[in-house]
Amino acid sequence: MLTLLFYNKVESLKVYHDITEIKNKIYNLKNGIFWLDLVSPGDEEVSLLKEVFQFHPLAIEDCLYRLQRPKLDEYDNYFFMVMHAFSHHSAKEPVEFDAFISNNFVITFHWAPLSFIDGLVDRFVKNPVVFEKGVDFLLYSITDALVDEYFPLLDDIEDRLSEIEETTFKHPDRHLPSRIFDIKRDILNLRKTLSAQREVFNLLLRHDFPFIREESRLFFMDVYDHIFRLFDTVDMFFERASGALESYLTVVSNLTNEIMKVLTVFTAVMMPLSLIAGIYGMNFKYMPELSWRLGYPFALLLMVLTALGLLYYFKKKNWI
Amino acid sequence: MLTLLFYNKVESLKVYHDITEIKNKIYNLKNGIFWLDLVSPGDEEVSLLKEVFQFHPLAIEDCLYRLQRPKLDEYDNYFFMVMHAFSHHSAKEPVEFDAFISNNFVITFHWAPLSFIDGLVDRFVKNPVVFEKGVDFLLYSITDALVDEYFPLLDDIEDRLSEIEETTFKHPDRHLPSRIFDIKRDILNLRKTLSAQREVFNLLLRHDFPFIREESRLFFMDVYDHIFRLFDTVDMFFERASGALESYLTVVSNLTNEIMKVLTVFTAVMMPLSLIAGIYGMNFKYMPELSWRLGYPFALLLMVLTALGLLYYFKKKNWI
Amino acid sequence: MLTLLFYNKVESLKVYHDITEIKNKIYNLKNGIFWLDLVSPGDEEVSLLKEVFQFHPLAIEDCLYRLQRPKLDEYDNYFFMVMHAFSHHSAKEPVEFDAFISNNFVITFHWAPLSFIDGLVDRFVKNPVVFEKGVDFLLYSITDALVDEYFPLLDDIEDRLSEIEETTFKHPDRHLPSRIFDIKRDILNLRKTLSAQREVFNLLLRHDFPFIREESRLFFMDVYDHIFRLFDTVDMFFERASGALESYLTVVSNLTNEIMKVLTVFTAVMMPLSLIAGIYGMNFKYMPELSWRLGYPFALLLMVLTALGLLYYFKKKNWI
Amino acid sequence: MLTLLFYNKVESLKVYHDITEIKNKIYNLKNGIFWLDLVSPGDEEVSLLKEVFQFHPLAIEDCLYRLQRPKLDEYDNYFFMVMHAFSHHSAKEPVEFDAFISNNFVITFHWAPLSFIDGLVDRFVKNPVVFEKGVDFLLYSITDALVDEYFPLLDDIEDRLSEIEETTFKHPDRHLPSRIFDIKRDILNLRKTLSAQREVFNLLLRHDFPFIREESRLFFMDVYDHIFRLFDTVDMFFERASGALESYLTVVSNLTNEIMKVLTVFTAVMMPLSLIAGIYGMNFKYMPELSWRLGYPFALLLMVLTALGLLYYFKKKNWI
Amino acid sequence: MLTLLFYNKVESLKVYHDITEIKNKIYNLKNGIFWLDLVSPGDEEVSLLKEVFQFHPLAIEDCLYRLQRPKLDEYDNYFFMVMHAFSHHSAKEPVEFDAFISNNFVITFHWAPLSFIDGLVDRFVKNPVVFEKGVDFLLYSITDALVDEYFPLLDDIEDRLSEIEETTFKHPDRHLPSRIFDIKRDILNLRKTLSAQREVFNLLLRHDFPFIREESRLFFMDVYDHIFRLFDTVDMFFERASGALESYLTVVSNLTNEIMKVLTVFTAVMMPLSLIAGIYGMNFKYMPELSWRLGYPFALLLMVLTALGLLYYFKKKNWI
Ligand SMILES: [Mg+2]
Ligand SMILES: [Mg+2]
Ligand SMILES: [Mg+2]
Ligand SMILES: [Mg+2]
Ligand SMILES: [Mg+2]
Ligand SMILES: [Mg+2]
Ligand SMILES: [Mg+2]
Ligand SMILES: [Mg+2]
Ligand SMILES: [Mg+2]
Ligand SMILES: [Mg+2]
Ligand SMILES: [Mg+2]
Ligand SMILES: [Mg+2]
Ligand SMILES: [Mg+2]
Ligand SMILES: [Mg+2]
Ligand SMILES: [Mg+2]
Ligand SMILES: [Mg+2]
Ligand SMILES: [Mg+2]
Ligand SMILES: [Mg+2]
Ligand SMILES: [Mg+2]
Ligand SMILES: [Mg+2]
Ligand SMILES: [Mg+2]
Ligand SMILES: [Mg+2]
Ligand SMILES: [Mg+2]
Ligand SMILES: [Mg+2]
Ligand SMILES: [Mg+2]
Ligand SMILES: [Mg+2]
Ligand SMILES: [Mg+2]
Ligand SMILES: [Mg+2]
Ligand SMILES: [Mg+2]
Ligand SMILES: [Mg+2]
Ligand SMILES: [Mg+2]
Repeated sequence: MLTLLFYNKVESLKVYHDITEIKNKIYNLKNGIFWLDLVSPGDEEVSLLKEVFQFHPLAIEDCLYRLQRPKLDEYDNYFFMVMHAFSHHSAKEPVEFDAFISNNFVITFHWAPLSFIDGLVDRFVKNPVVFEKGVDFLLYSITDALVDEYFPLLDDIEDRLSEIEETTFKHPDRHLPSRIFDIKRDILNLRKTLSAQREVFNLLLRHDFPFIREESRLFFMDVYDHIFRLFDTVDMFFERASGALESYLTVVSNLTNEIMKVLTVFTAVMMPLSLIAGIYGMNFKYMPELSWRLGYPFALLLMVLTALGLLYYFKKKNWI
Repeated sequence: MLTLLFYNKVESLKVYHDITEIKNKIYNLKNGIFWLDLVSPGDEEVSLLKEVFQFHPLAIEDCLYRLQRPKLDEYDNYFFMVMHAFSHHSAKEPVEFDAFISNNFVITFHWAPLSFIDGLVDRFVKNPVVFEKGVDFLLYSITDALVDEYFPLLDDIEDRLSEIEETTFKHPDRHLPSRIFDIKRDILNLRKTLSAQREVFNLLLRHDFPFIREESRLFFMDVYDHIFRLFDTVDMFFERASGALESYLTVVSNLTNEIMKVLTVFTAVMMPLSLIAGIYGMNFKYMPELSWRLGYPFALLLMVLTALGLLYYFKKKNWI
Repeated sequence: MLTLLFYNKVESLKVYHDITEIKNKIYNLKNGIFWLDLVSPGDEEVSLLKEVFQFHPLAIEDCLYRLQRPKLDEYDNYFFMVMHAFSHHSAKEPVEFDAFISNNFVITFHWAPLSFIDGLVDRFVKNPVVFEKGVDFLLYSITDALVDEYFPLLDDIEDRLSEIEETTFKHPDRHLPSRIFDIKRDILNLRKTLSAQREVFNLLLRHDFPFIREESRLFFMDVYDHIFRLFDTVDMFFERASGALESYLTVVSNLTNEIMKVLTVFTAVMMPLSLIAGIYGMNFKYMPELSWRLGYPFALLLMVLTALGLLYYFKKKNWI
Repeated sequence: MLTLLFYNKVESLKVYHDITEIKNKIYNLKNGIFWLDLVSPGDEEVSLLKEVFQFHPLAIEDCLYRLQRPKLDEYDNYFFMVMHAFSHHSAKEPVEFDAFISNNFVITFHWAPLSFIDGLVDRFVKNPVVFEKGVDFLLYSITDALVDEYFPLLDDIEDRLSEIEETTFKHPDRHLPSRIFDIKRDILNLRKTLSAQREVFNLLLRHDFPFIREESRLFFMDVYDHIFRLFDTVDMFFERASGALESYLTVVSNLTNEIMKVLTVFTAVMMPLSLIAGIYGMNFKYMPELSWRLGYPFALLLMVLTALGLLYYFKKKNWI
Repeated sequence: MLTLLFYNKVESLKVYHDITEIKNKIYNLKNGIFWLDLVSPGDEEVSLLKEVFQFHPLAIEDCLYRLQRPKLDEYDNYFFMVMHAFSHHSAKEPVEFDAFISNNFVITFHWAPLSFIDGLVDRFVKNPVVFEKGVDFLLYSITDALVDEYFPLLDDIEDRLSEIEETTFKHPDRHLPSRIFDIKRDILNLRKTLSAQREVFNLLLRHDFPFIREESRLFFMDVYDHIFRLFDTVDMFFERASGALESYLTVVSNLTNEIMKVLTVFTAVMMPLSLIAGIYGMNFKYMPELSWRLGYPFALLLMVLTALGLLYYFKKKNWI
């Protein structure tokens, strides 16, 4: 699907979805600036990139062939930016988000609908002031919204982590490790994405890009700060996930200990009692106790005392 | 709450808390320098930043939206600094501490009362000499006091660590790991904060900031040294916490060993005795020992000797 | 074997395999460009490098002596590039792939047949357009094809990894660790190769090489992107393999736990029953229960109740 | 205590300890060079730094407030160096060693007596040639001696390490881990110190310090080499200490194995024998074996054969 | 021992061992170039360095005092290089190999005979062409031969590693860990040496040394390549050694598991049988089974069925 937000001072902001109208609008462009968003475009729509805008085949190939790492390539009179976006529509899996930026347009390209894009379009239609501020501020608004979508994702991971951490010490079951490994992998993937994305903004800030005015640098710096904070958080999540696994292992090894203690106490207490019973079960002719009037109670008493003695010993050892 | 410390050569230092007076003072400012501290400010107080000082919306947003990483942003005729402070009032959780620095003022902003700020105000009221030395020395005094607050915090962590280390070898209980993981997380958080804060001062020293005179660099270098030393200490704490966990695991695995030995010795000693009793409990018609006069004492002696032999064997094996 | 693809505007592309023809062609070369591929060459064929092209003995030695690290050496009027290739013919083991690049030729050298080279020759014969675009685009086509061969290799590793991960939690057997160590080694080797290869392309892009035109840089950048993505993937594989080993160890330690529980429950339930039987097997004269009419059922009942009580206790402990 | 070594060509080297004489000497200084050493100075002695030499308050504060990281600060016409020294007097704990270097003096400051300083004073008194070579060579002699004191310290750590390594495989007792953790901490502390100290000399060599002549650079390079070698050695010690802990853990886990085998063999051999005894202890009326003439020997033989069979099985399993 | 290889165009190459002759030759040197090798020199031989060549005392001290890290120091009209050599004569322990390089000589110094030096001398005597190519090519020949000696050393380590890896899974015995720790230490030492040596050649290539002509750079680059490859290999060895230890630990923990299973199966099968025997060994007056004609076979059958049932259960659990 195509969405063109076309702005000039006379007509203010207008929205177009029809490809013929869009082509028309672009060919007769003077003085305006526009944002064209392509979501899961068909072949004819993709061909706009090649035929109307004449972008480099390698950049177009990067759009079509997924999944690129976040990066920033400079071409002759535009630059090409790859980011990873997340969306309410497609939880968890990153969506490649490509952007072409020139002196009077931003073109964005993605293979899945993105909630933050829908939100932005609505916002711009209501209040087109962003377009007055120029192409760099438009790009800032888009990337800022893209990065803001990471925060709920991280909250989600934090919830899962907290639940895992609680479970570890309360009800460690043997499915916990596989849950920890799952979350660790999610965190590592996110960390990789954020690290490359941070690099992209770092480049955007350090390098002197033609369509980014000095006064807009501060805004991109703010996005960079957000990414940095996300990265810090994800880093800390990784430490916590590793800690959860270690905790689980100490819990398991404590449990083994516990079981061994129960086994040892049981065995050590029962065996002497069985021996006493065994002794008085021997068939020797001459065993004085056997004919004692109180032989039986005496044997039982012996057993009880032995048991109590052993239990006291293990109590002192802090095993029970 | 607002606190304005306003200084000029004629009137020396005066303190104001009322917003109208403060606005008045600032608008009619000539030749003086001042420090304005905003703690948990209300909307009207926050609006000072925007309307009176006309700071950049992004910097104001950073103040309002917590929690920023420590950083240093340069704007047209002021710079904006984010640090993390700790306070007796709010133990353990870092408080974002923001500062705007210009050629004749320092404005600080924080959402919680900070004990070191109260102390500084008292000190400056008694002895306003700092204000004579200029805005950079004022900033140094504030940041130096902020960093000094970290030391008791670290002493506190060191106490907890020492207690954990002692417990590990003396009374390892199964709640120890979770205490170690807690302290490790606290240490990691502190380490992150200090690392970013070190970066801020590094920037302040390397970069040529307009309001920091060459002769004040040495003072900021001293703060930098303190942060570096704190960082070193925290680093060492992390190693110690990791060591404590490893220790705990070796203690637990030694304990398992110990339990296994007790179990093995018990089992290995009792089983043969039970077998002897079992043998003399068999009902064969022709068992000569059964009719021996001393058959019973003989059997008991056999048991005692067997037991002693086995105990000697385990003694030699160093198991008991 | 030798393959010469010789191109000039008049004759278009021609293929030669005979060494005498090839020498002839090269000596009488004007205006054309060519690609000469040497695969497992004999002594006479190798001597072309020395006698006809007069390459540096160290570069020739690098070709002959395997296995070099990927690298890029600049000589007076050519440069020498070492890469690692993979092939359908020789699965898994990397094949050293050497290339000499000058202003009008590319010479490639390898000791094993490579499927992607065969594919390229076929493609160029059908469509010689690449040769029109110059030596740098020819080199790009070759290296792009070389790098594309890594993708199926990684898919293969991913399949093995996924199988291992599934096995870990479902049927962990004791041969799993050695399979994990095998895959880890393969991954590490691949990682090393890719890391050096990435460095080679980085050099090619940063450094100003005489035969690489500015407009071709973008194409080599694309190859560099692919290598980077491969590297990222391999990195993630390494994390997964490490995770699989950790998983296996937690599974084993859980299993030990499980076994211990079975042992403890069995022992703890059976021992008291045996004790009861032992007690009623004692030979005391005065044991009232022995002459009870329902003594035997009573003893059996006692056993059943004891057993049930203990099982209930272990049930509550969540051990069964 | 104060020690002044004052040198000029006319009077050669003279030593002073009295503060009034020292002040006198310094105020009337022409053409000479001197070394002033302050060890655990009293207030009046410390005040020399402030009043006579007018050093920066921050540098003086660094002297008084311990313990600084090794560092190098440049002031207007002197530089200030912090190192860590070790001494026979105060084994193991590092002593902060501060030095002020100017064009005609070196002033050193430390809170504990240092054996290498005493040695140097003796040496210089006997042979004042160092003072002829200038202030940089004097500084070199002091720092070289300081660094040389690290070598016996490392020998000591190596002895402890070797003893631990031997013990690990021969008589692993459960106090070993805590000894390993102790030595690891000592090594880590030393590593931190050496790393910062290396940085100081690196700075001294790279940076163009006014009082260090080009021809003396080689000598400081030699000290730098020594520190680098110490650092390498300490690094290797750390690896060895980590290895010792790992060794200990494998030894313990092997021991657990061993104990389990003993338990299993004992249990598996004794239980069947007990069962046989139990069977012939049953009270069935019709049990033919019971009335066999050789029933009892037969039962004993059965037991012996069963035991031998099981022992043979475990022998084959390599458990005994 | 001294060996002087003296070359000039008129006399070609001549070899001298006598110190007086050597001194003579060097003092009357014109137009020639020479290589002087000192192996375990006596005091008089060492004094050549000081008196004839007047090398810097620090460089001479580095020769005499062992063991230096590999390094490269530049002096006024010569440079001083430290490498580590290995030799068939003195397996495993590195030998410090020092070299002084000037515009017309190379002087090498080592405290142990080195096989590759003997080989070089023989080669040069037969074919003095290297001396025609100049001092830099002479140095290249020596360092190339020195580095080539590392390859057999690495093959040796690889053999030991392969043997350890095989043993781990086939016959893990408890001496394996200490063998792994030994090889790990050897690898780490080698890694350190190679890393410093790589740095030396890196310096030699990057820095503009006066006696190394541009055309020789390629040859030193080749030596650098070899060291890099060695380093890569040693790195991989380290990973393999770590893997071997991890393998060993998983093997041991699997074994513990195995033992536990045997113990559990034995205990769980035998205990119920003993209980049955115990029950029918009770002395109750009214126990109907005791007087059954087939009571005894019935009890035995009960035992067999119980045992079979339990064995089937463990079979299903995959424990046997
Ligand atoms: Mg794509
Ligand atoms: Mg990717
Ligand atoms: Mg944002
Ligand atoms: Mg936003
Ligand atoms: Mg912000
Ligand atoms: Mg924002
Ligand atoms: Mg904030
Ligand atoms: Mg943060
Ligand atoms: Mg301070
Ligand atoms: Mg201070
Ligand atoms: Mg200080
Ligand atoms: Mg410092
Ligand atoms: Mg410190
Ligand atoms: Mg090769
Ligand atoms: Mg290699
Ligand atoms: Mg490709
Ligand atoms: Mg391709
Ligand atoms: Mg691409
Ligand atoms: Mg491509
Ligand atoms: Mg101090
Ligand atoms: Mg020294
Ligand atoms: Mg010395
Ligand atoms: Mg030296
Ligand atoms: Mg020395
Ligand atoms: Mg030496
Ligand atoms: Mg060394
Ligand atoms: Mg060095
Ligand atoms: Mg070589
Ligand atoms: Mg060679
Ligand atoms: Mg080579
Ligand atoms: Mg070679």
